[in-house]
Amino acid sequence: MPGIMAEVIWTDVGPRDGLQNLADAAPTEVKVRLVRGLLATGVPRVEATSFVSPKWVPQLADAAEVLNALDRADLSRLRVLIPNRRGLELAMEHGVGNVLVTIAATDSFNRRNVNRSVAESLDGVSEIVELAAASSVTVDVAVSVAFGCPFEGRVDRQRVVELCGELIARGVDEVGVADTIGVADPAQVRDLCERAAAVVAGPRLALHVHDTRGMAVANVVAAYQAGVRRFEGSVGGLGGCPFAPRSTGNVCSEDALQALMRMGASTGVDLEAYCTVAERLGRDLGLELPGKLYRAGVWKPDAIGARTPA
Amino acid sequence: MPGIMAEVIWTDVGPRDGLQNLADAAPTEVKVRLVRGLLATGVPRVEATSFVSPKWVPQLADAAEVLNALDRADLSRLRVLIPNRRGLELAMEHGVGNVLVTIAATDSFNRRNVNRSVAESLDGVSEIVELAAASSVTVDVAVSVAFGCPFEGRVDRQRVVELCGELIARGVDEVGVADTIGVADPAQVRDLCERAAAVVAGPRLALHVHDTRGMAVANVVAAYQAGVRRFEGSVGGLGGCPFAPRSTGNVCSEDALQALMRMGASTGVDLEAYCTVAERLGRDLGLELPGKLYRAGVWKPDAIGARTPA
Repeated sequence: MPGIMAEVIWTDVGPRDGLQNLADAAPTEVKVRLVRGLLATGVPRVEATSFVSPKWVPQLADAAEVLNALDRADLSRLRVLIPNRRGLELAMEHGVGNVLVTIAATDSFNRRNVNRSVAESLDGVSEIVELAAASSVTVDVAVSVAFGCPFEGRVDRQRVVELCGELIARGVDEVGVADTIGVADPAQVRDLCERAAAVVAGPRLALHVHDTRGMAVANVVAAYQAGVRRFEGSVGGLGGCPFAPRSTGNVCSEDALQALMRMGASTGVDLEAYCTVAERLGRDLGLELPGKLYRAGVWKPDAIGARTPA
Repeated sequence: MPGIMAEVIWTDVGPRDGLQNLADAAPTEVKVRLVRGLLATGVPRVEATSFVSPKWVPQLADAAEVLNALDRADLSRLRVLIPNRRGLELAMEHGVGNVLVTIAATDSFNRRNVNRSVAESLDGVSEIVELAAASSVTVDVAVSVAFGCPFEGRVDRQRVVELCGELIARGVDEVGVADTIGVADPAQVRDLCERAAAVVAGPRLALHVHDTRGMAVANVVAAYQAGVRRFEGSVGGLGGCPFAPRSTGNVCSEDALQALMRMGASTGVDLEAYCTVAERLGRDLGLELPGKLYRAGVWKPDAIGARTPA
């Protein structure tokens, strides 16, 4: 991504993966304010919406309106999810230069999701990459259920690594391993990321985790220790999980960014601004978002020391 | 702790640190059911209550009733918090064989908590250890605000390590480093635990963390990697933080235990039974506890694979 100097490239997927997992569609103006607020935190990239049919994802039916409301200058830091060639065309019409496609690590999940085998979806990726390349649009792919599948259970890690390599061979710009249903643990994340990094050159490997079972921040830390530098999460931990109805969603961006920054990572992000966005979003949606940092506040030990007499 | 074979000694402090941070006192019968339920999960130790004056902690004013309602056989797995010699006498009257005393890493926090300097509190610890030893009662000490102090900001790690060594020299059985206000990060936890382990023989060092800023499970993982084998947390993440009013409390026991077990640790705990206790406790208290695992359920990939046709 040109212009991004931070060591860690964080993508906030709250406006897409977060909002699409809420029962009701958020008002367009809330979405636009959210994307603008996130861009203002300094986060390198925001997944703003998706061009999936409103029949499947009514929560994001206003994708065009959201993109039209944003500044042209902001487009270089936006990504949108697309399901197919038609989605890519819509994204390009709106001047988006980076798209995300998902493919599952298992045939069972892929068939239930898009009614195609993984091999068929791989051919779809090739078609999208070819069309995108002609317009200098970069294509990222997320490998869903890379750590566990609700229909098949365990997922063979070698199968995931091979799929990552196949995607790179087909011209994909970034490959993400996604813990779609929130079952991964730190040891598993470290192991898979180290293996995937062997076929996806370090900076182009991303991790996408959900906090379904409370291990998401630990998983981000484990991946960072394994050399991963691209991550995805949602502001305030916005979202949910269709496979675990009472559960929370993506890893909370600002909670995890805080952990990475404490470990010395440069992220380009203003954590206090991030907390303000989470606070406002919760108010706008009438929800108590599950993130922790925005409630407690960023820890500033030096400010305390300075104002407290010895 | 005799009879405990697990590699990791987890102490559930929900009935004490969790309940004392709620606005209202829970009914005694809820507390008794909670302690019994926790013991039935196989968790090695439960911090059942405290003999602190009801004037300061009205939430635990029924300490004697709770202990009297429990089976004598369970006493060997219980610990109670005591503030002083009088508390120790009460604990011994009830047949408790393990007590916890807290001391702060900073004079500011210690003075606000117990109106004494750290040096004065150390002398109090010596007095308690001496009296306890005569009755074969073991004394554990938690070093509060070991990772950051709300009144002093940063806490010098060397000062914490020296305090840990001083406590061991005074005959304390177990020393815990406590992130009382939830500001620690994984790198800091790993660093302090490695240094503390040099003065507190490995198995006698404990970590007590709060999830105030969302890093608690990651901190437990980091401490485990640094060799720590004793931990404290609360079922369902029950509790709060007096220094951050909207925040959650101790690290959620079952979420963190799950992470340790995934890393190969033996804990002696039945995670599904733990989730059942969290679920029931939330119902009893009329609260949505912040823990994640009890909502999503324990991940059992092999069970899925077995029942799904290929």
